Amino acid sequence: MEITKRELINFKDRNFPKQICFKPIGIIHTPFKTIKGIPIQSSMSNQKGTIEIFPEYKSGLKDLFEFSHLYCLYFFDMVKLPVPLQSKPFLDNKIKGVFAIRTPFRPNPIGISILQILNVEENKIEVNNVDILDYTPILDIKPFVSEFDNVKTHKIGWLKDRIKYKIS
Amino acid sequence: MEITKRELINFKDRNFPKQICFKPIGIIHTPFKTIKGIPIQSSMSNQKGTIEIFPEYKSGLKDLFEFSHLYCLYFFDMVKLPVPLQSKPFLDNKIKGVFAIRTPFRPNPIGISILQILNVEENKIEVNNVDILDYTPILDIKPFVSEFDNVKTHKIGWLKDRIKYKIS
Repeated sequence: MEITKRELINFKDRNFPKQICFKPIGIIHTPFKTIKGIPIQSSMSNQKGTIEIFPEYKSGLKDLFEFSHLYCLYFFDMVKLPVPLQSKPFLDNKIKGVFAIRTPFRPNPIGISILQILNVEENKIEVNNVDILDYTPILDIKPFVSEFDNVKTHKIGWLKDRIKYKIS
Repeated sequence: MEITKRELINFKDRNFPKQICFKPIGIIHTPFKTIKGIPIQSSMSNQKGTIEIFPEYKSGLKDLFEFSHLYCLYFFDMVKLPVPLQSKPFLDNKIKGVFAIRTPFRPNPIGISILQILNVEENKIEVNNVDILDYTPILDIKPFVSEFDNVKTHKIGWLKDRIKYKIS
């Protein structure tokens, strides 16, 4: 049965969830077969990869090729829980709160990468700027829209003066 | 027992997950009590709200106040699954693939908002640019780093000429 209607639950049935479960919509194939050597940010990578969307979600890719970049949301499936709530980030040697760093070792190990779209064909998206381990489960794909998503910040905390290079 | 070590699972134990489950780390309080009138993007909102991080995760907020903006990842808990894989976005009247639009009605209803940090005190983060329904479960908070996250795009697909205004 094809689903055509977007529906909300009733407000009276709204309960704060104890647990939130998702099904992966795909898998990413990348050159990074081990943890070592993975770029720490997508903006620091010029490696290519392929997001394979599972066949049942393929029709959701319509029109995506019209965008140059996407947000890829994925699950850091190699992370052992629980994680420390404070630790040292890759680019500094002082202990920080986990919500002030971008480590994969997070209470909910969700990753975000901004990837350039090179091609969309059938159920596959070829992408650039990959900083993701091979075979990582994909949670969501959204179009990146610079008009919405590029934000002028005035403080980048401990990262100030620690960002040395950037490719894209 | 305090967790101090970041650990990976063994590669030999790696299995592609059928389901990925998370526990909310907090809840957001916003002026939007119903779906009507919620701005369609955080960059189009100047409404304020408060992210309440649950006490057990409070120490993860250390150093976050040093940043001016954060990524807030949350669960669109009002969405009834399954959703259509193609539908009309808010800003156009042609049918698009769900991964080429930013509707909350997604196979995995995860939202991303870029919010300005106004204050961090105890387990609460006061934020600006809120486009999120009151009482929405929060999945993750990451520092937004313009040097990493502002990306120059060359194509924004069907959204070209459809973006009329932006506040921040």
